[in-house]
Amino acid sequence: MTEDLSLGARVMALIDDLARHTDEPGRLTRLYLSPAHRAAAEAVAGWMRAAGFQVAIDAAGSVIGRREGRQPGLPALMIGSHIDSVVDAGRYDGPLGVIGGLVAAEAIAARGASLPFALELVAFGDEENVRFPTSLSTSKALAGRYQPEWLDGRDADGVSLREALTRFGGDPDGIAALRRDPAGILGFLEVHIEQGPALQALDQPVGVVSAIAGITRARCTVTGEANHAGTVPMGMRRDALAAAAEMVLAVERLGAAAPAAVATVGALAVTPGAVNVIAGRVDFTLDLRAPDDAVRARLVAEVDDACRAIAARRGVGFTAETFMDNTAVVLDPGLQAALEAAARRHGYAPPRLPSGATHDAAALAAIAPAAMLFVRCKDGISHNPAESITVQDADAATRVLVDTILSLAERQPA
Amino acid sequence: MTEDLSLGARVMALIDDLARHTDEPGRLTRLYLSPAHRAAAEAVAGWMRAAGFQVAIDAAGSVIGRREGRQPGLPALMIGSHIDSVVDAGRYDGPLGVIGGLVAAEAIAARGASLPFALELVAFGDEENVRFPTSLSTSKALAGRYQPEWLDGRDADGVSLREALTRFGGDPDGIAALRRDPAGILGFLEVHIEQGPALQALDQPVGVVSAIAGITRARCTVTGEANHAGTVPMGMRRDALAAAAEMVLAVERLGAAAPAAVATVGALAVTPGAVNVIAGRVDFTLDLRAPDDAVRARLVAEVDDACRAIAARRGVGFTAETFMDNTAVVLDPGLQAALEAAARRHGYAPPRLPSGATHDAAALAAIAPAAMLFVRCKDGISHNPAESITVQDADAATRVLVDTILSLAERQPA
Repeated sequence: MTEDLSLGARVMALIDDLARHTDEPGRLTRLYLSPAHRAAAEAVAGWMRAAGFQVAIDAAGSVIGRREGRQPGLPALMIGSHIDSVVDAGRYDGPLGVIGGLVAAEAIAARGASLPFALELVAFGDEENVRFPTSLSTSKALAGRYQPEWLDGRDADGVSLREALTRFGGDPDGIAALRRDPAGILGFLEVHIEQGPALQALDQPVGVVSAIAGITRARCTVTGEANHAGTVPMGMRRDALAAAAEMVLAVERLGAAAPAAVATVGALAVTPGAVNVIAGRVDFTLDLRAPDDAVRARLVAEVDDACRAIAARRGVGFTAETFMDNTAVVLDPGLQAALEAAARRHGYAPPRLPSGATHDAAALAAIAPAAMLFVRCKDGISHNPAESITVQDADAATRVLVDTILSLAERQPA
Repeated sequence: MTEDLSLGARVMALIDDLARHTDEPGRLTRLYLSPAHRAAAEAVAGWMRAAGFQVAIDAAGSVIGRREGRQPGLPALMIGSHIDSVVDAGRYDGPLGVIGGLVAAEAIAARGASLPFALELVAFGDEENVRFPTSLSTSKALAGRYQPEWLDGRDADGVSLREALTRFGGDPDGIAALRRDPAGILGFLEVHIEQGPALQALDQPVGVVSAIAGITRARCTVTGEANHAGTVPMGMRRDALAAAAEMVLAVERLGAAAPAAVATVGALAVTPGAVNVIAGRVDFTLDLRAPDDAVRARLVAEVDDACRAIAARRGVGFTAETFMDNTAVVLDPGLQAALEAAARRHGYAPPRLPSGATHDAAALAAIAPAAMLFVRCKDGISHNPAESITVQDADAATRVLVDTILSLAERQPA
């Protein structure tokens, strides 16, 4: 018997087609409200229309399609993800959830299934938050959590979000009205690449996300004494870089010891940064995440204590300024169970795993039960042109999604 | 009895006067062959002439003055240092040795002492090697070690050394002829701020330099795997920054364990360097110095071994490319003894100490006995506007220099 990969093949083909829309020739960069974003949104809107959806690009730039259920006006099961990208991105991060939802909806229509709820497909536009200083702005608009000051934020070229949104064809003044009534949304399902190596290590195509990790981010500064690298004996130095190096290792050690947590120093800058000068100052970033907020709070305190102890022992200054403190989002247990049961019916053994990255589902969880299905990606690589999934896994994820939707339909009072 | 600080007061006054000549208003920056360098050279030449010296600014831009001894044409005792500076410099690094030599020569003339050797005063121009990619070019010109390819090197504005030297009034084609006959130079004495904290810690105004440290410099690269800071479990990372942090601490530990050595990672850059991305690559510099070349060779090997072991354990790549390997210069034992004896006659207990920084004396040592007198500077700070010495210490150093010159005169066969 030949394996039927038709759904996966269509998902891969549409994702490849969508990847043509880029702001930069030769690599995939599709920033929020750019011409490439507009072109991608129109392409997605066209595919949704062809699948029988009523489609609009909303005031914030999200593509939203709706296909009514057995009768018009029923609450909706919403499915989607985002179509914006980081700079020099892979093609699956975001589009997999948009296209996966679309192809699942096509498959359901092809079966002639009539649903006791409407289906909504959504392609958010500002998940990566690369261009403007925002946080999930397009999905938070639906959740009524849009922060109006975001409109005044500017990109690297000095263009404000308000100006860019107007040029895009959006409507800054219409964003408040995007807030959805929770009674109208049965749930939100997001399919997304894992962006980590756990599914590959477990040899599973899909996993069910248990929670989206909370994140604490801080900017830290170590202040030592810049001096001549040749003339100050080792015992008389206050080397900011050596102190920071100890801190980086403390962050790594404490992060590894905290359950399901991750801890990263991703950026570090040395001043003055010359071969023959002892470092006088080091600035570095902290990114601490855990699916359990208590674990994260304890980790933050431990890292702070460790850095202060290192600084005190070495006679250098240390300051830390927290600039992000997002709580964890526990995903809906009922939808998690529905995704898991569907995956098991297909013969998989999907693990429950936390998401260290944030996702639009975290915004939607404020107004609706939300759940996520993770899809295995090669070597856990993402935010990179080497991002890769197989047609087999795309097919598995789409069929699990179809099966989940149909199982929810069976349970839904008509 | 009132302390006589007349020599120190004159040294401080002339150094303050020289500090007026800067390339940048508001701070002291006097790069080789700049207009400020020219103005400073002319000022120094004027002071030398007033002290009875025949003065020329040579083909490479050094100011050289000569005052004959008992009869014309005797071999010369050469005294000096440099008048170029780093960017945003202190005023003592270099000028102290030039002005200290000048004021000592004035004092000797005031005593009416006739010497059995000529005195030469020299103000080199390219010791800091900040503007062009050179190494002690002006003093190496006298030693016959000038590298002609230096003339083709360019500054940050694209100006070649050859062009800049011509504009300055120098003569690129005349440099080869600057080579001095070793028979004509009895010795070279350089007074210089310590640029380190040892004399302050020992409560001594001056110290005698035993050797100028050899230096190995290398560029190192750690190659890990850039990935999402939220999604890759701690145990599955190949974090280039965590690996580099271990290496920085290994460099510090091994440097502290090697006798009289110093080891510094002064520059370190993280790629991609974002708060939410595990570091994929780190580039850092190594600067390893020791007054004993065998100690330095062992330290270089230990650091290399340690970095390779860390890289292997963490599964990251490591490469190191050596770009400087200068051997140590042991200074002349006879001149060291003369400086020490003179200092002891003034009631001091001068330590012998290595110089971790390089100096023009290292270049002159190739053709003449060379020695250096270090002068205490506040908190060991240099290459910084906060560089500071006291008038008492300037006076002590100048009197020790006068006494040394006179003691050498007594020993010199007339």
